[in-house]
Amino acid sequence: MNRVSIISIGDEILIGQTLNTNAAYIGEKLTALGFEVIKSFVIGDEKLSIHESLRSASEDSEFIFITGGLGPTHDDITRDSIVEYFKTEFVFNESVLKRIEERFQKRERKMPEVNRQQAYVPKNATVIENFVGTAPGYDISHKGKTYFVMPGVPSEMKSMMENYIIPKMKKNAEENEIFYRQRLLYTTGIPESGLFELLDDINSWLGNCKLAFLPSQFGVKMRISHRGSTIEEIDEELDNVEKQITELVGKYIYSNEELLLEEVVGKILLQRKLTIAVAESCTGGIITDRITNISGSTKYFLQGVISYSNDSKIKTLGVNVDSIIKYGSVSEQVAIEMARGVRNISSANIGVSTTGIMGPTGATETKPIGLVYIGYVDDDKEKVVRYRFAENRLRNKERTSQAALELIRRMLLGIADET
Amino acid sequence: MNRVSIISIGDEILIGQTLNTNAAYIGEKLTALGFEVIKSFVIGDEKLSIHESLRSASEDSEFIFITGGLGPTHDDITRDSIVEYFKTEFVFNESVLKRIEERFQKRERKMPEVNRQQAYVPKNATVIENFVGTAPGYDISHKGKTYFVMPGVPSEMKSMMENYIIPKMKKNAEENEIFYRQRLLYTTGIPESGLFELLDDINSWLGNCKLAFLPSQFGVKMRISHRGSTIEEIDEELDNVEKQITELVGKYIYSNEELLLEEVVGKILLQRKLTIAVAESCTGGIITDRITNISGSTKYFLQGVISYSNDSKIKTLGVNVDSIIKYGSVSEQVAIEMARGVRNISSANIGVSTTGIMGPTGATETKPIGLVYIGYVDDDKEKVVRYRFAENRLRNKERTSQAALELIRRMLLGIADET
Repeated sequence: MNRVSIISIGDEILIGQTLNTNAAYIGEKLTALGFEVIKSFVIGDEKLSIHESLRSASEDSEFIFITGGLGPTHDDITRDSIVEYFKTEFVFNESVLKRIEERFQKRERKMPEVNRQQAYVPKNATVIENFVGTAPGYDISHKGKTYFVMPGVPSEMKSMMENYIIPKMKKNAEENEIFYRQRLLYTTGIPESGLFELLDDINSWLGNCKLAFLPSQFGVKMRISHRGSTIEEIDEELDNVEKQITELVGKYIYSNEELLLEEVVGKILLQRKLTIAVAESCTGGIITDRITNISGSTKYFLQGVISYSNDSKIKTLGVNVDSIIKYGSVSEQVAIEMARGVRNISSANIGVSTTGIMGPTGATETKPIGLVYIGYVDDDKEKVVRYRFAENRLRNKERTSQAALELIRRMLLGIADET
Repeated sequence: MNRVSIISIGDEILIGQTLNTNAAYIGEKLTALGFEVIKSFVIGDEKLSIHESLRSASEDSEFIFITGGLGPTHDDITRDSIVEYFKTEFVFNESVLKRIEERFQKRERKMPEVNRQQAYVPKNATVIENFVGTAPGYDISHKGKTYFVMPGVPSEMKSMMENYIIPKMKKNAEENEIFYRQRLLYTTGIPESGLFELLDDINSWLGNCKLAFLPSQFGVKMRISHRGSTIEEIDEELDNVEKQITELVGKYIYSNEELLLEEVVGKILLQRKLTIAVAESCTGGIITDRITNISGSTKYFLQGVISYSNDSKIKTLGVNVDSIIKYGSVSEQVAIEMARGVRNISSANIGVSTTGIMGPTGATETKPIGLVYIGYVDDDKEKVVRYRFAENRLRNKERTSQAALELIRRMLLGIADET
């Protein structure tokens, strides 16, 4: 009674132009609620394929998730296919049209006539409101199965999942007494194999829980999960395992609440009423971009300086020209002067800096691609850390930004020297 | 005779832990060779599902690609499932064992006994050698269909594709005279429906080509594709369609070579030997991050200032305090002063700025969420454009960054006032 199939409609996925992040997102969320994702199809914008996959999914799944092909143009045929499959008809939905019109008005644009089509919805569907785009989603019940039809644009799909589907599925899981819980422990600064080694004899303390390692360029997430007969029993087992893991590798865990590292850092700064400024050379703005992705960051983030040219390091940040000549712009000395400089000009409590070589060009005999210095200065402390990353340009930027945010977290919590 | 199905085996994809990059890679390569990828399944490590998807794929495809589940441990059941499905048996393959043993010797490790299993291969299979791992692949012909079975580790799968399968499929395409080409036109600043309207009576000029719209927060990609009997004929038809589209919506197209907008802008700057500096308030660094993602950007990007606080706008950029008091920091006047300021302090040819309200908080009675001013200043020209985006915080930042880069492109090409 808890099986899920996912149908992703779109040639762009089949021909490898777009990665199927939608199916991954849906799979992750449904798994977290205790549902079992048993298969996932990708098919083209083609009526017969859509019907065939709907039939196949309906055979062994109770919940069928369909994404893609709901746009207003000629190659979007999911709506028609759905109406045919369920042998129903289109009905005009006034409130959907109103919402689409409002959307265009708000953006001060005229609504193209073709968008009016999207207000015709299958008669057997409950409309799922689209807060971030024009195409409405559908929630359809048919012969004991539930079908959720959503647009393929990831943000629109996610918005519908968060606002409508996940709450509904959560309720369903409770009603059907599906007892499953998982916890995610987010770590950074240590590889999967390093964690594995520190966790030692896992089977001696894991009990009936499952433990999975999910690595990415931002770190390794550990997922502890458990399926049991009461929530209390599950929670108790998960508590024990989480406690054990925290004892062994706690300093690498920056969140057990599924928070991004920039959120965790922001919370600490806010709590302590501290302000921060960032001087980025090699990272080119990704650190300030991440910090300012968090709503409310205006309360603690004052200023960034992206000093790509040496001239800007000297003129805007006040880096000593002799330091650049003597040590080079990628050096411990320049990193600390950049951090001091941006702290000075912004009057922030904390100044952070990055300087490095992101590749593919720019390496010298003594300074390889991936070499990075991160500087940190606050009221009492100064620190520079050196990293050597070995990825491509974008990955090196991402990894450096993660290392810088983690340095801030550890300096603020006083655990920076333990690593 | 040229239809392809892809079967990806592995729970980690179903539960959203791993993105299905294998299917994307296979889809891209086969499409480029002129094959038609008609469906792609993801299923768990489960014999019945494997058999069912093999049956379904064999019904309408000539080529079936299977990845995953070939490892040596207990949860890898693809080998057994394949042997059962084809009603064949395992035979011991001496040379496969030798290669696996050599692999361990080279790494100075003892081969675990469990790897010996991998030398038993289906009797009806031709072995595909694995140069980067232990599990061999299989090439199986059965009732006029071809099955390629590969490991799920992306590097092993890719190695087999490059060394064995792609050359074989290329030969097959030539023998069967399969001719296919596609082109991508990248647009921004206009929604899918707007393009559709401007393209008017598409069917009157599309001929035998196909046209697809692929929208994202960075704009809409148009894909024109064609399958024909000679390459010359296809190229001619695609030329005609591209010419027609360019006449109707050319000013929105920033690339017909699959380049990112920041690459296009970088190329123009480099070509004209111009330098640029950026002052970002609301975008928080995403514009400089995107500019510096491009290798070689150090030649034209001098400096960024992320002036989140009013203080930093005044002190670092030299914005007039009276302008902030009179017009507010989100205003045309402050946008232009920020652009002038960052151009001044960096001595760049071009200064660009953003100021706006990204949400979810910060709106006032006269200034709603999504209101943005983008400033542009160069040697001869000054311009401010006003936008009203209506998305969430991250999307508003992304959209503003795309609009700013597009403003730079249009100002440089002298087409900014036509919109």
